[in-house]
Amino acid sequence: MASGRDDIEALIALMGRLPGLGPRSARRAVLHMIAKRGALMTPLAQSMATVAAHARECARCGNISTQEMCDICTDPRRATGEICVVEDVADLWAMERGQFFKGRYHVLGGTLSALDSVGPEELGIPKLLDHIAADNVTEVILALNATVEGQTTAHYIAEALETRQISVTSLAQGVPIGGELDYLDDGTIQAALRARKAF
Amino acid sequence: MASGRDDIEALIALMGRLPGLGPRSARRAVLHMIAKRGALMTPLAQSMATVAAHARECARCGNISTQEMCDICTDPRRATGEICVVEDVADLWAMERGQFFKGRYHVLGGTLSALDSVGPEELGIPKLLDHIAADNVTEVILALNATVEGQTTAHYIAEALETRQISVTSLAQGVPIGGELDYLDDGTIQAALRARKAF
Repeated sequence: MASGRDDIEALIALMGRLPGLGPRSARRAVLHMIAKRGALMTPLAQSMATVAAHARECARCGNISTQEMCDICTDPRRATGEICVVEDVADLWAMERGQFFKGRYHVLGGTLSALDSVGPEELGIPKLLDHIAADNVTEVILALNATVEGQTTAHYIAEALETRQISVTSLAQGVPIGGELDYLDDGTIQAALRARKAF
Repeated sequence: MASGRDDIEALIALMGRLPGLGPRSARRAVLHMIAKRGALMTPLAQSMATVAAHARECARCGNISTQEMCDICTDPRRATGEICVVEDVADLWAMERGQFFKGRYHVLGGTLSALDSVGPEELGIPKLLDHIAADNVTEVILALNATVEGQTTAHYIAEALETRQISVTSLAQGVPIGGELDYLDDGTIQAALRARKAF
């Protein structure tokens, strides 16, 4: 017979495996859920089961969805001919938060990495090129992270697209809005100076 | 038709209602779960549903359990005649973590509070007195928080037990193990000084 405490301990252990929750905050979260069984815990369990059963990668762009193709790929208003290439779904969500980008995405799911033997095949670069060819794309925006791996991947993709009639751009680098020079690293200040504009 | 993004957005919104998770960490947790659908998300959803369906207060002590009576109340080895009175289940778990207490508990679920109109009836003090009478209790340990409400409640319970042949104790107050005087508040240092012992 499973004892009452075991069920709750098992739930705390599972919750503690989520990023950002340690053993202590997992306990707090479980106590809070139990106190709000009807209003929070039951809907949360159901929502989690639904997403676990149906979540998959969008067949076209790699975004996470519970459908065969994600909302962005199936939205005809977003067929603008612009594709924004991002490393992972969190980056896609970051771009979507402000609702300023009206095109579509392609989620690589990582970066090229010789150390981890992630080559162009493993990263699905051929799939990206197919996506670009199929979607009548005129501009590819490389929104990869400003890390060595991110920039290596960006250069590789730019080279692969060189022979096609597609404009390849990347996000501007510079001083963040609201940023104070004193708190910025030297590389950012240097990049901002190099890309200075007429005032 | 529910869209794919809505399901995931709904899950993020529910996760964000847990204590310790903001909108940003809820998104991270959901992405992590989706990446580990089989190993983490499905078991978590099942465990949550089980606990949501079966979690209840132990009929005797108020601890949380998925059984009619909790593991501690049904363990014959813990019938030591000692009852430790705590404010809530988190405090019970804190006491249990070190496994030094061998008796049983009584969870009040709060403190007396004139402001919130929580009187002895609402707090279940009569139930505590029944519990004490039924369990052949010889010692009641008041492990209530060292706050005004906690101490008011402790005094009320101590008075209610005055006429019975039961020893009523409370946790010692003083310098925490590993604590540095410089970082302690004045009240704690004063209490530790007042309760000083022969070295």
